[in-house]
Amino acid sequence: MSDIEIAQKATMLPIMDLAEQKLGVDRQHLDPYGHYKAKLCLDYVNSLGDKPDGKLILVTAISPTPAGEGKTTTTVGLGDALNRIGKKAVMCLREPSLGPCFGVKGGAAGGGYAQVVPMEDINLHFTGDFHAIGVAHNLLAALIDNHITQGNPLHIDPRRIQWKRVVDMNDRALRKVVIGMGGPGNGYVREDGYDIVVASEVMAILCLATDLKDLKERLGRIVIGYKADGKTPIYARDLKAHGAMAALLKDAIKPNLVQTLENNIAIIHGGPFANIAHGCNTVTATKTALKLADYVVTEAGFGADLGAEKFLDIKCRMAGLNPAAVVLVATVRALKFHGGVKKEDLNQENLAALEQGLANLERHVHNIREHYGLPCVVSINHFTFDTDAEIALLQKKCQELGVQAVVAKHWAQGGQGAEELARVVSGIVDNQPGKHSFVYGEDLSLWQKIEAIATKIYGAGAVTADPKVKSQLAAWNDEYGHYPICMAKTQMSFSTDPNAKGAPTGHTVHIREVRLANGAGFIVAIAGDMMTMPGLPKVPAAEHIDIDDNGRITGLF
Amino acid sequence: MSDIEIAQKATMLPIMDLAEQKLGVDRQHLDPYGHYKAKLCLDYVNSLGDKPDGKLILVTAISPTPAGEGKTTTTVGLGDALNRIGKKAVMCLREPSLGPCFGVKGGAAGGGYAQVVPMEDINLHFTGDFHAIGVAHNLLAALIDNHITQGNPLHIDPRRIQWKRVVDMNDRALRKVVIGMGGPGNGYVREDGYDIVVASEVMAILCLATDLKDLKERLGRIVIGYKADGKTPIYARDLKAHGAMAALLKDAIKPNLVQTLENNIAIIHGGPFANIAHGCNTVTATKTALKLADYVVTEAGFGADLGAEKFLDIKCRMAGLNPAAVVLVATVRALKFHGGVKKEDLNQENLAALEQGLANLERHVHNIREHYGLPCVVSINHFTFDTDAEIALLQKKCQELGVQAVVAKHWAQGGQGAEELARVVSGIVDNQPGKHSFVYGEDLSLWQKIEAIATKIYGAGAVTADPKVKSQLAAWNDEYGHYPICMAKTQMSFSTDPNAKGAPTGHTVHIREVRLANGAGFIVAIAGDMMTMPGLPKVPAAEHIDIDDNGRITGLF
Repeated sequence: MSDIEIAQKATMLPIMDLAEQKLGVDRQHLDPYGHYKAKLCLDYVNSLGDKPDGKLILVTAISPTPAGEGKTTTTVGLGDALNRIGKKAVMCLREPSLGPCFGVKGGAAGGGYAQVVPMEDINLHFTGDFHAIGVAHNLLAALIDNHITQGNPLHIDPRRIQWKRVVDMNDRALRKVVIGMGGPGNGYVREDGYDIVVASEVMAILCLATDLKDLKERLGRIVIGYKADGKTPIYARDLKAHGAMAALLKDAIKPNLVQTLENNIAIIHGGPFANIAHGCNTVTATKTALKLADYVVTEAGFGADLGAEKFLDIKCRMAGLNPAAVVLVATVRALKFHGGVKKEDLNQENLAALEQGLANLERHVHNIREHYGLPCVVSINHFTFDTDAEIALLQKKCQELGVQAVVAKHWAQGGQGAEELARVVSGIVDNQPGKHSFVYGEDLSLWQKIEAIATKIYGAGAVTADPKVKSQLAAWNDEYGHYPICMAKTQMSFSTDPNAKGAPTGHTVHIREVRLANGAGFIVAIAGDMMTMPGLPKVPAAEHIDIDDNGRITGLF
Repeated sequence: MSDIEIAQKATMLPIMDLAEQKLGVDRQHLDPYGHYKAKLCLDYVNSLGDKPDGKLILVTAISPTPAGEGKTTTTVGLGDALNRIGKKAVMCLREPSLGPCFGVKGGAAGGGYAQVVPMEDINLHFTGDFHAIGVAHNLLAALIDNHITQGNPLHIDPRRIQWKRVVDMNDRALRKVVIGMGGPGNGYVREDGYDIVVASEVMAILCLATDLKDLKERLGRIVIGYKADGKTPIYARDLKAHGAMAALLKDAIKPNLVQTLENNIAIIHGGPFANIAHGCNTVTATKTALKLADYVVTEAGFGADLGAEKFLDIKCRMAGLNPAAVVLVATVRALKFHGGVKKEDLNQENLAALEQGLANLERHVHNIREHYGLPCVVSINHFTFDTDAEIALLQKKCQELGVQAVVAKHWAQGGQGAEELARVVSGIVDNQPGKHSFVYGEDLSLWQKIEAIATKIYGAGAVTADPKVKSQLAAWNDEYGHYPICMAKTQMSFSTDPNAKGAPTGHTVHIREVRLANGAGFIVAIAGDMMTMPGLPKVPAAEHIDIDDNGRITGLF
């Protein structure tokens, strides 16, 4: 059965009942969106401050490969399994982006028997959060061009506007556009471009904001561009945009409740890119979940070098979160890919390649334990073609590393297939929870922070940048030196070369560009070409998506 | 008190309770969106087919002026008043567009004590319908450019693509753009443009579709452009876009229930432009309301020459609706404006100007009775500065025309202020309901239909067009000759000159361009420049919109 067929066969319970039954949340604190989605009211969220926090478990992965790893399914499977073994657990996931749904990647509501439902709603508009983010972003863009057209009293340099427009669609034709064509009535001609909504700084802001006040302040301090001197920033608050932007986000800031196939609560909220943004769900959702459950399982984007690093150095630092353990997802197939096997040969047993590919896992395990100071469990996301010999080798190697590796079969079996994983993980967080450290201190210079990430986490031998980039960082040190770094590099490798599989070492990380995300409160350091607007493939997934006369959707995956 | 202050003081009742209490709709047939908005499930809507229809009352207006007329407030006030005098009435309104909220015009949820609530939600994202329409539209646009980039097997002529992109924002810089810049990886460079979401053909389609099947068929037959011969159309279904577009609209097609300040049910659903589209709420909403209530009060955009004409000749014809009466909204101020008074002098009594301006009202009354064959009641939307002499003159003149004119004070007094209007209107529809006729027969040629509208309704002496336009219409006659005409002209005058107030006659209507809206099922005839993407003013309303730490919104109007 396809994911959507499994999802449509689920017996969902009314979310208002489920929230009361599972988490003790009275229905008056919920805004329903249909019968199976709801938003938690902010008053209630804010009222939870004094309750003790549950344990936070991060699910991350080895460096991604085309073979697929399964962070979301593992997060859902582990959450369901924890509930099965009698623990009160909630999952915190990211919201899917519409663009990839119509492109290659498909949706992001888990898969197999480890899914969140209603799958169609979650993958399509959900509760409208991304639409609200897109409109808030584009309102600011419209106000910028209108300001210039109306006489430009702020002296915005039209050549130095860095605030692009966004759309929640894979639309490569919009990457670079020229706007304001058609004569004086349409304003001034200038170059512009579109990003996908998940790449918007408004998304990062919504995910990091602690409350409405913080949200509005962050929106107000967005730097939209500069004056002609190239140095004097223009803020969104200079355009009086932040009040209306925050008003547009009044519901988007409220965490969304849904359920898994096994009727456990998942909070799905926010979904920033994991390259030019920090790639985790909202601080509001995570903090709320920690008040409502004893165990909170959450995920971070891409591999641990990007997702876990940013989760810890950006999100946990800003929000004061203390994760207790990290689950590192790996598959035999992906490890073989890291060991040099081609995608089409991954279903063949290959112990030599597996052993070679283990270098990637080993580096991630090392980073998690040594640099982040957290206990680590390897979750082997089981695939049908995995052989006993491969699994045995993988477990033996993990044992040599002193890390527990558990085979998890949640994709095929639901929570039941991840019960051992749940026992191992809960055993660790109950008995030897970690105390995480940061990869870099707040007081290092911006350049030193970049160096720390590249050398410690990526294993780089050198970090380089053009003098222009270095002087820009130096210029920012006074005012923004306390900001963490948000590294934008390929997720496919520890290095900046997506083809360097395994655990490359001694490589050079070249920082091509740096950007100030002043509303989000971090500096984006870009190593390599970052795609912030995907394209559609030759046969887009959209061609297969359909709805019948009774409203049943097919072809969504 | 401002509109938003009045709205925020309202005592709203839970919409699920209200729908049951007022209309007998069981909560199982509703999808809640928060506690005060809900969508009617399609299964339920479809199950109502056998119930008898209530009476349909159209609220329209004299030709709009900057003085304001008040169609939405009158629709709400009349609906509340009908309920007050013991009639079971539901209002059918259009959804507001976000763009104008941040620009000059503000929201569209009524005003004073004749409002629908929750006002902030209705004016901002509401239930996400417009976002869904925007994404469905932009998905098709992305598929078009992707198709060309991937080799263009359909041979779409990039110079002849008529499917633009949309955004729900007043953003003049996007009216004309160049896309696909930046090299081969970003596709082919071509000219494009953005319309505001309400101008999308997807909006018109959603508003005219009778069910999901019809929706999908209409989406599939959208003409996105032509092959190099300039004649062979490319349809959305050729790009396999319609299934995914319909899936994106699965919730948008469901009518939205909210309440008035007086806790009566209003259905707010759809909101197409009244110039290049037909300017009324959805067929689904109107038909559902007719099954649920004895009286349905609905509105159509702009003045009766555009709104009422399209309501009758497009919407009622396609959907088989039979309105029983028309309420024509007029204000003393607007009539004085039509009589030549400047905006700043409208608060001064001026009987001569009022009498002169009455020509506009007289023409609309004449059209409604003679050309549409419907009984008409004039609703004088009362303003504080109206003098007794002015009101008396207006009523006397209406009496001479044989039309009842009732002073309505719903803006200041709510439904109570429109009780007399409610008694007069219900008396007419109960005792002498109209049987409407069309302005033109379906079998006329497309050009003859345009002539019929221009000469009968606009009072034109001549209708002209370039040979190119006429030959285009002639070429369409075979396949699309049965389509109605959707006239796009200025709303400010019966003529195509916005400055020709009153009731111009003998003027020439020049058709500049014609467009095939094959999904909507009409031919757009454009007389004059039509703005399908508004701009923001020097001080946009957005600058005053704010939200406080507790989530209370201010500055929205």
